[in-house]
Amino acid sequence: MLKPNASSLSRLLPITGWLKSYSLQILGDDLFAGIITAILLVPQGIAYAMLAGLPAQTGLYASILPPVLYALLGTSRTLSVGPVSIAAIMIASALTAPEISALGDPLESAVILSAEGGLIMMLMAALRMGGLVTFISHPVLTGFTSGATILIIVSQIAPLTGIKNLGCGMDSRCYGDAVQSLNFETLLIGFSALGLLLSFGKPLTALLKKTDMPQSLVTAISKCGPLLTVLVTTLAVSYFQLARQNGVAVVGPIPSGFPELMLSFGSSEKWQLLLPYAAFIALIAYVESVAIAKVTANLRGEKIIPNQELIALGAANMAAAISGGMPVAGGFSRTMVNFAAGARTQMAMLVAAGLLAMVVIFFSHWFENIPKATLAAIILVAIIPLVRLRNILQTWRYDRGDGIAEAVTLLGVLVLGIEEGLSLGIMLTIISYLRKTSKPHIAVVGRIPDTEHFRNIKRHQVETWNHLLLIRIDESITFANINFIEDFIVTELRQQPAIRHVVLIFTSVSDIDSTALETLEHLNHNLQAAGIIMHVSEAKGPVLDKLEKTDFIEQLKPGKVFFRTEDAVQELA
Amino acid sequence: MLKPNASSLSRLLPITGWLKSYSLQILGDDLFAGIITAILLVPQGIAYAMLAGLPAQTGLYASILPPVLYALLGTSRTLSVGPVSIAAIMIASALTAPEISALGDPLESAVILSAEGGLIMMLMAALRMGGLVTFISHPVLTGFTSGATILIIVSQIAPLTGIKNLGCGMDSRCYGDAVQSLNFETLLIGFSALGLLLSFGKPLTALLKKTDMPQSLVTAISKCGPLLTVLVTTLAVSYFQLARQNGVAVVGPIPSGFPELMLSFGSSEKWQLLLPYAAFIALIAYVESVAIAKVTANLRGEKIIPNQELIALGAANMAAAISGGMPVAGGFSRTMVNFAAGARTQMAMLVAAGLLAMVVIFFSHWFENIPKATLAAIILVAIIPLVRLRNILQTWRYDRGDGIAEAVTLLGVLVLGIEEGLSLGIMLTIISYLRKTSKPHIAVVGRIPDTEHFRNIKRHQVETWNHLLLIRIDESITFANINFIEDFIVTELRQQPAIRHVVLIFTSVSDIDSTALETLEHLNHNLQAAGIIMHVSEAKGPVLDKLEKTDFIEQLKPGKVFFRTEDAVQELA
Repeated sequence: MLKPNASSLSRLLPITGWLKSYSLQILGDDLFAGIITAILLVPQGIAYAMLAGLPAQTGLYASILPPVLYALLGTSRTLSVGPVSIAAIMIASALTAPEISALGDPLESAVILSAEGGLIMMLMAALRMGGLVTFISHPVLTGFTSGATILIIVSQIAPLTGIKNLGCGMDSRCYGDAVQSLNFETLLIGFSALGLLLSFGKPLTALLKKTDMPQSLVTAISKCGPLLTVLVTTLAVSYFQLARQNGVAVVGPIPSGFPELMLSFGSSEKWQLLLPYAAFIALIAYVESVAIAKVTANLRGEKIIPNQELIALGAANMAAAISGGMPVAGGFSRTMVNFAAGARTQMAMLVAAGLLAMVVIFFSHWFENIPKATLAAIILVAIIPLVRLRNILQTWRYDRGDGIAEAVTLLGVLVLGIEEGLSLGIMLTIISYLRKTSKPHIAVVGRIPDTEHFRNIKRHQVETWNHLLLIRIDESITFANINFIEDFIVTELRQQPAIRHVVLIFTSVSDIDSTALETLEHLNHNLQAAGIIMHVSEAKGPVLDKLEKTDFIEQLKPGKVFFRTEDAVQELA
Repeated sequence: MLKPNASSLSRLLPITGWLKSYSLQILGDDLFAGIITAILLVPQGIAYAMLAGLPAQTGLYASILPPVLYALLGTSRTLSVGPVSIAAIMIASALTAPEISALGDPLESAVILSAEGGLIMMLMAALRMGGLVTFISHPVLTGFTSGATILIIVSQIAPLTGIKNLGCGMDSRCYGDAVQSLNFETLLIGFSALGLLLSFGKPLTALLKKTDMPQSLVTAISKCGPLLTVLVTTLAVSYFQLARQNGVAVVGPIPSGFPELMLSFGSSEKWQLLLPYAAFIALIAYVESVAIAKVTANLRGEKIIPNQELIALGAANMAAAISGGMPVAGGFSRTMVNFAAGARTQMAMLVAAGLLAMVVIFFSHWFENIPKATLAAIILVAIIPLVRLRNILQTWRYDRGDGIAEAVTLLGVLVLGIEEGLSLGIMLTIISYLRKTSKPHIAVVGRIPDTEHFRNIKRHQVETWNHLLLIRIDESITFANINFIEDFIVTELRQQPAIRHVVLIFTSVSDIDSTALETLEHLNHNLQAAGIIMHVSEAKGPVLDKLEKTDFIEQLKPGKVFFRTEDAVQELA
């Protein structure tokens, strides 16, 4: 058996990388951050499960085993893995789809989504497809996040106000009923919770900073807003018996103790129907997690390895599945809290997961009376910064195509649906990318006097020659752009009938594929028939190696391959 | 109203371009070529209709109006538009699909395919999407053509031999029945036809060339093979009454006279079900036609305008639809015959179409006794050169990825089906293209002593400097490759801790999209924090224009934008 050396072990289990040099001082920091993060995890776990249309415990269970798996396998030291808002609304979209809801048991469906998502990530890791995911561009991701967040905000109006039915369409009587169903006590709780949460943000931090309190304590206090809000509103509901007497919606009973490990998972039909939804959730979970992980890693000069992230997140989602949890990802607000609270390593998340486990085993009955309106308020405060409509304008100003992609993705999510909007955005990006790359940059160049420097004749004062045409092709030559390149050369030659030598400058050509090679051979053949000789200059080693396997260089003769463009000019001018 | 000038008229109606300078001498050439092509069009039209599983007249009708429309609108002077083998097998695949055949009336379905294909091409022309079709690479097209041709060959075994049923699968008794159904007379006719056709190829031409016969007559005689074969075998069938007495399958009665113009076209459900098939047929019809048109245009120094081809082929297919014809495209063997027979302009095809019209009006009853075995032989001889299995090896040797794409497309067509194989090939090409472009070529460069020329330090003997790193990025920087580029720079800097200045050489960078810009800004921010200054050199005008709209250049400071890399070296080294 091969003895694993330290570096290959730390590649497979990144935790061994930082555990070696772990110290008591670091443990102190991680303990503190872990407690703060756990305080946020409890209400977020319950809230996001509700948002997904699932029982509260699926969010809590998803906050225990998955972060432990990520702590072992993940390359980010501060990413907080668990239930997240965007994945939650995607789960809700899947569970309410007619063909899925017809199959019943949303809990089972959610667990299948976790399992499938985990498997998909593992498969992508095995195929080393981490890189392909970069094909979700920033504009598409921003548009998608804004759109999904707006959907979440709309979905929280009902629990925040107690209004029963908001899907009225054109039925005016329905709207009357909706307004009548407005529950005053719920509204009061909801808006008190909102007020409390908002005052725990900047106002309280600013106030506390004026005192002599140490910075870490300021952070700790300001991050307790959600817990305190939950405490106050839950006590109010319990004390005034608002749930029973005034119809204020609450979380309701949560089974106590650990979840049973699940090993059987529904019918194969259900797996099949859920697969596309799981794929979308996995994709977004991965892309968002890596994006968040990179933000904190950059701040500390650490390195995220995308393919290892696929493995870690895949394992975390499979852990969610067997422990009865909803799909998980790295959460933005929670990771930022973890980081700001001073987390140094994933030990912080191990601490948080341990605390969550204790809460689930011993204290889950405490959560019965948490009003849903409070959870809605927590969700709203956490996600509103994710709506970035003004960003579309900025993007548009810099790059039209990107701005359009962002706006289309956002509108697509709002009008067509979450998965449809995302697909639309990705397809649009790929098509416009293909269209762009099919028109590569090509320049006719000349020499800047007294140098060996060749630049575009349209932009610079350069020397040119009557019988010699220098064409610089600024991209690899492939099936995607060879037609454009051929047209360019032919048109240029038609406009300058005196030309006898064409030099193709290959400085930027890293590859020539077989479609392009065939076309170049045809072109050379036709040019020779017309008495024009084609040359190549500054071809890179790998390109020359490849061409030497064919008889292209032979066919060029009397055309030559020049090392530098300057050599070509001295011989041909 | 705007008065159209000559050049815009000839752009809309390319026929006006060559008609102005038309002469009697050219007419002589075109007349001759038109007659030869018509002689080939008749048996091919009937044969390809049979191959598609349609009545013979749909192939004949498709050879009249469509080539006339193409003659008016097309930019190729020699392309012969009409029924083609690859489109025919695609039509057969559509018509035998369970959901399509359930709707009945294959004739109506074929006409809808023509109409939809025509509309799709027109739409693509309006969106100027001619260029996007280049995303069917040569390897995919070759693999697809080989695969579809093999399917055609297999489909012709039954009519060539008279064997009834070949889809036996695992049932051994069925094979016995199939062998018993072998019809001796059919077999005899089929193989005689094959022999006759093959002897009209190289052997006869070689023989005739030894005589003093003029070249054009040699061509004419050698191209009469199909007609003569049809004549001989049809006479044999009529004389010996083989159809009635020996069960030799024949074409059967063909309605005489002109087709009625069709103006109503089936149910909207049928249109919907046929749409994807029509899209595939239109795609392949367009790509193959343009490829063939380019071959002959290159030989004569003429120019094909892809977008105008979409309009011309779209109009031709819509003409096929209203005159009750099957979908059409430019045919390879027919175009080559037309060209070799000396066609100078599309007048040759107008002549051929006129002859076809006369045949359909007056002589269609002559075709009743054409044995299907003869048509099978004609199809086989015409298409066997299209199977190019050895090409896969050649492609593989030059470019692994292209070789795989070609093999996968071919196998996909054979195993999964025509449309599926083609989709698979296209998807594979696009994914591997995206994967390739996500890893752009980047080189650390140094100066070649005593020049201003900078080359890869790995391949050339160059000067480098301790504190200065020169990185040349050989592609536009986009969301697709920015992650790779960022990783490259960060890794390089980690390996060379002495570096204080990084110069990014943008010679080949034609665009920086918004995702890339954001990432570069982050990178610059992090590098500055680490005491490393980022510079840019040789940025092109359009890139600078775009960057100046942002504060990127401001953020770079004290980093600079250098005009030449040499300037950067002189200031920083």
